[in-house]
Amino acid sequence: MIQVYTGNGKGKTTAAMGSALRALGHGMNVCIIQFFKVKNYYGEQRIFKKFKNLKFYSFAKKHPHFYKNIKTNDIKNECRKAILRISGIIKEKKCDLLILDELNIAIRDKYIDIEKIVRLLKNKPKKMEVIITGRAAHKKIFKLADLITNMQPVKHPYYNGIKSRKGIDY
Amino acid sequence: MIQVYTGNGKGKTTAAMGSALRALGHGMNVCIIQFFKVKNYYGEQRIFKKFKNLKFYSFAKKHPHFYKNIKTNDIKNECRKAILRISGIIKEKKCDLLILDELNIAIRDKYIDIEKIVRLLKNKPKKMEVIITGRAAHKKIFKLADLITNMQPVKHPYYNGIKSRKGIDY
Repeated sequence: MIQVYTGNGKGKTTAAMGSALRALGHGMNVCIIQFFKVKNYYGEQRIFKKFKNLKFYSFAKKHPHFYKNIKTNDIKNECRKAILRISGIIKEKKCDLLILDELNIAIRDKYIDIEKIVRLLKNKPKKMEVIITGRAAHKKIFKLADLITNMQPVKHPYYNGIKSRKGIDY
Repeated sequence: MIQVYTGNGKGKTTAAMGSALRALGHGMNVCIIQFFKVKNYYGEQRIFKKFKNLKFYSFAKKHPHFYKNIKTNDIKNECRKAILRISGIIKEKKCDLLILDELNIAIRDKYIDIEKIVRLLKNKPKKMEVIITGRAAHKKIFKLADLITNMQPVKHPYYNGIKSRKGIDY
């Protein structure tokens, strides 16, 4: 099954990470592919190493929207590596839950070709669960998904000028 | 700050659990109070004991909607104990992140008095983060919250007759 957590509200990545915890609790193998997030910054990244059933890969750590000196070509290169990794994980068939954190952003910003990822995911083993996160999910991701939750911000403190906080937002 | 994850979509409890993971990664103290969930069934519950900074309490494990032989009075008794526990955690001031999983259901079904919980939460230490989950959040919880995400089901396989699956849904 393919699950998608999208929308502008808080809870997309944390829902994916909570799902990882749930799967690990049942002894499943979890792979996390993360885009656009610097390493050792988010609390959950520091916990990942505690679990031998969890493999964590990070690509294109800095998004040019936040880091001005990042070159498009470097991001594209990193995303190419990510696609290879995803392809490898799918072929290997050992992973029970594959989390593609912020993949929607990589697609939206054209660092990853939507056709390529759709083709890959269509060929995943039936029993492999996939979770895709990130706002602005592509309509072809919507079509592919079995479950979609739209995280709607009803109240959000960032709109009131409150900055992100350690342990809560990262 | 008080965060609320509500709505009919998947991802409310997992977002709370992912938040717990994030906070634990930064060495914070996390307390989880869970309502209406049988123990040792959900994958995440089996992982909790791995973390010495995490305290987990479970109350009113069986909701009468799913278990017909459960007495209202027993649930109310359990919820009274939960309130005492929450009150103790708030007074102790040691907890950095307090998760009240499915509290919204306990309020909706009148097992917990909304005024009592509002009074408790208004007196929480300013730096203590609280996450409340469950569909159908009370309007007074909405008012109290700093952040609310409504988890909207855009596609949901249960509507297509697919049953909940181990490691994914519990």
